[in-house]
Amino acid sequence: MPPKPLDYESLNENVKKVAYAVRGELYLRASELQKEGKKIIFTNVGNPHALGQKPLTFPRQVVALCQAPFLLDDPNVELSADAIARAKHYLSMTPGGLGAYSDSRGLPGIRKEIAEFIERRDGYPSDPELIFLTDGASKGVMQMLNSIIRNDRDGILVPVPQYPLYSATILLYGGSLVPYYLEEEANWSLDLENVKQSVATARAKGIIIRAMVIINPGNPTGQCLSESNLKEILLFCYRENLVLLADEVYQQNIYQDERPFISARKILLDMGPPISNEVQLVSFHTVSKGYWGECGQRGGYFEMTNLSLQTVDEIYKVASISLSPNVPGQIFLGLMVNPPKPSDISYLKYTTESKEILDSLRRRAHIMTDGFNSCKNVICNFTEGAMYSFPQIRLPQKAIDAANNAGKAPDVFYCLKLLEATGISTVPGSGFGQKDGVFHLRTTILPAEEDMPAIMASFKNFNDNFMDQYENYRSQSRI
Amino acid sequence: MPPKPLDYESLNENVKKVAYAVRGELYLRASELQKEGKKIIFTNVGNPHALGQKPLTFPRQVVALCQAPFLLDDPNVELSADAIARAKHYLSMTPGGLGAYSDSRGLPGIRKEIAEFIERRDGYPSDPELIFLTDGASKGVMQMLNSIIRNDRDGILVPVPQYPLYSATILLYGGSLVPYYLEEEANWSLDLENVKQSVATARAKGIIIRAMVIINPGNPTGQCLSESNLKEILLFCYRENLVLLADEVYQQNIYQDERPFISARKILLDMGPPISNEVQLVSFHTVSKGYWGECGQRGGYFEMTNLSLQTVDEIYKVASISLSPNVPGQIFLGLMVNPPKPSDISYLKYTTESKEILDSLRRRAHIMTDGFNSCKNVICNFTEGAMYSFPQIRLPQKAIDAANNAGKAPDVFYCLKLLEATGISTVPGSGFGQKDGVFHLRTTILPAEEDMPAIMASFKNFNDNFMDQYENYRSQSRI
Repeated sequence: MPPKPLDYESLNENVKKVAYAVRGELYLRASELQKEGKKIIFTNVGNPHALGQKPLTFPRQVVALCQAPFLLDDPNVELSADAIARAKHYLSMTPGGLGAYSDSRGLPGIRKEIAEFIERRDGYPSDPELIFLTDGASKGVMQMLNSIIRNDRDGILVPVPQYPLYSATILLYGGSLVPYYLEEEANWSLDLENVKQSVATARAKGIIIRAMVIINPGNPTGQCLSESNLKEILLFCYRENLVLLADEVYQQNIYQDERPFISARKILLDMGPPISNEVQLVSFHTVSKGYWGECGQRGGYFEMTNLSLQTVDEIYKVASISLSPNVPGQIFLGLMVNPPKPSDISYLKYTTESKEILDSLRRRAHIMTDGFNSCKNVICNFTEGAMYSFPQIRLPQKAIDAANNAGKAPDVFYCLKLLEATGISTVPGSGFGQKDGVFHLRTTILPAEEDMPAIMASFKNFNDNFMDQYENYRSQSRI
Repeated sequence: MPPKPLDYESLNENVKKVAYAVRGELYLRASELQKEGKKIIFTNVGNPHALGQKPLTFPRQVVALCQAPFLLDDPNVELSADAIARAKHYLSMTPGGLGAYSDSRGLPGIRKEIAEFIERRDGYPSDPELIFLTDGASKGVMQMLNSIIRNDRDGILVPVPQYPLYSATILLYGGSLVPYYLEEEANWSLDLENVKQSVATARAKGIIIRAMVIINPGNPTGQCLSESNLKEILLFCYRENLVLLADEVYQQNIYQDERPFISARKILLDMGPPISNEVQLVSFHTVSKGYWGECGQRGGYFEMTNLSLQTVDEIYKVASISLSPNVPGQIFLGLMVNPPKPSDISYLKYTTESKEILDSLRRRAHIMTDGFNSCKNVICNFTEGAMYSFPQIRLPQKAIDAANNAGKAPDVFYCLKLLEATGISTVPGSGFGQKDGVFHLRTTILPAEEDMPAIMASFKNFNDNFMDQYENYRSQSRI
């Protein structure tokens, strides 16, 4: 019998090549253990509400009212007047309500609110026609990469360690990932010399570099790019004729004051012509991160700079195939970029809730970094931004040998042991890419603040025993 | 200067090849006219709420409560007790609420409710592990085609006229569309001889046929496949080693009693071994159609039959790249497959609302078919199911000449004139594929029932004048 079309051996090879570590072996094992009744602390995905973060009240009021407009006329429902007004505002943008497909680019009124937000943020006007809404930022990244990649000689520069959305999507669409390494010793900074070296190596192999990805703040590495760093990146894209894909989904998540978030677009426009009107830039944002954390709503957008109308039309056409992004997610985006103003009834509550979340995340970033750095053979850069901690785990040779014997990558071996011993579900560094012979894991900084000390103590207890076990084992075997 | 990576000339060629008529030239022109203040009747997309259909009350109550769980404890909110209970039921499935990513396949509890629905519908058990939730059914179709298509020699059998999701996606992923024609003279029935002929022609060109798409009830053609028809299709897929992709999103939309909806899966399992455990089948469903019409929520699922665990794992892995489908849309799906029961407080209201919508759609299907058939040079099959009417427009030669002179396809020419004269926004038949020299348009049957007589009168007035103009023109020119 020949294989059937959906048998494994006859699937699209690109599908088979894809690896997606964030929900890979560790996640699957954690899910199994959970089914068996073990308490699991899922720190594998940046999923704040799943770890107990409460949603902001105001946006939920507005979206609930949009879902159930009959509540707007119910005299018994006591919701704040500004939530009611805002629900009416969004409903006025979609005569069919949340149940109607919007334009495939998203509701024009919300795209306008996003453009206004970008203008306030960057100090330069933004054109709503160049802003497309998506079911989460990932879908937008996938659409852009699908437009850019023509064949396996098309290369995309991706920071390593990287968020595996990029490696997975580049493989799925048959392109070539060209890694550039971030400098762990310099707090995961981006050294352009590394990028140039990667480009030279790839070009020598016949790869045409088409785009460069930056993740700012970094995932999984947490660093914030400086203004001068962004400038040299844009200059480089200009000289090398690259599209810059700026993943800025963590722009609200900043835990230090030296390097506030600056958008790639602001720097681009600051640089003036010819660069400012030549470099093609696509920037991504979402409601899933920040102090919102509304991951399950799947609301994202991308903004295009210096793309021709003809290209924008092509992207619109492809977006039309799946009709429209989900409308509730669009309204969350509208609310995120246009939050309550000081004169609004909900302002105080909204800002208090937001500040509490952000302040606590900042404290948790410190607790976690300090906790890791107190462990044997573990060193960890401070999480300047985003939601992750990415400690380096210096594994004794005997642990590496034991992993090899078990048929596992050393970091996978370590993370599985950690999971079994403590219930802490992390992602091995190999899922993000790391230099040869260097091992990491990624955790989120999202467990509840009050649980943090116990989690870090549990981690330290496991880690230090693990290190003792394999170091002593080595000593013993040497004796 | 060389072109930049996102300039039109350097985009992925497959992106450029895509055509998507449903939101093509006619839609864009209609949007322009609307901006200029003209009243437009958008019948180009099956978007019921945009044309005034009211959402069902019960599911909106439940989802609003899930978005704003604080309302559950508000003594002033008078929502029905079963809506409150149901909201708590769904919230218990997602400890992080609607703001948390779910498993990439969707919430296990909702996949179980879908499996139970399928079992009640078909009389055979269904496995929740083989059901994946998606942001609307289109996303699922796209994912399956991406898994099946390896290169441009891989062919997908698609009914013509077809819903352009298929042609667009096949081009986007670089495969070959192999059309099989439906029989307009026999109420758009599927004659397997046509399919065999298409397969033979394609194979002669070196195409490997991998999958067959059926749309039942048909879009844009509205026919319902009979049991015997489905049997011969499945037997054919068995003999020819094809995956069957069964687009069954209109399964609630049936407007005659002779051919009720029967799922491809039921027929497959009825046929017994070896066919029932050999033919690979993927079936699609959604909350966007039926009497729900919740398009904007983007809730869909697909169910896989006879796929190996290894393939299912690959599909899971690719689904993981974009993390999870939107959670509110998942809850709408749960509610659709598990509606209020006779003992529930909301049952009467829910069934009354559903029946009103469906009864009205049935009446509108008749009004529209009869209206088209009363027009000069127009013949139209009855809409047995789905949401569309697809009349054939017999254009006089002089109209065809005039279209050619204007550089337009004849059906596009006619539909543009119709739009300018009446505000009725349709999709030309060429967007769906039609036999050479035969012209159609697609409208939805969704305009409000009370508006229908006026719309059809306006159409008839335009059409009959158009026909007179071009027939007389011909007569005159002959004299």
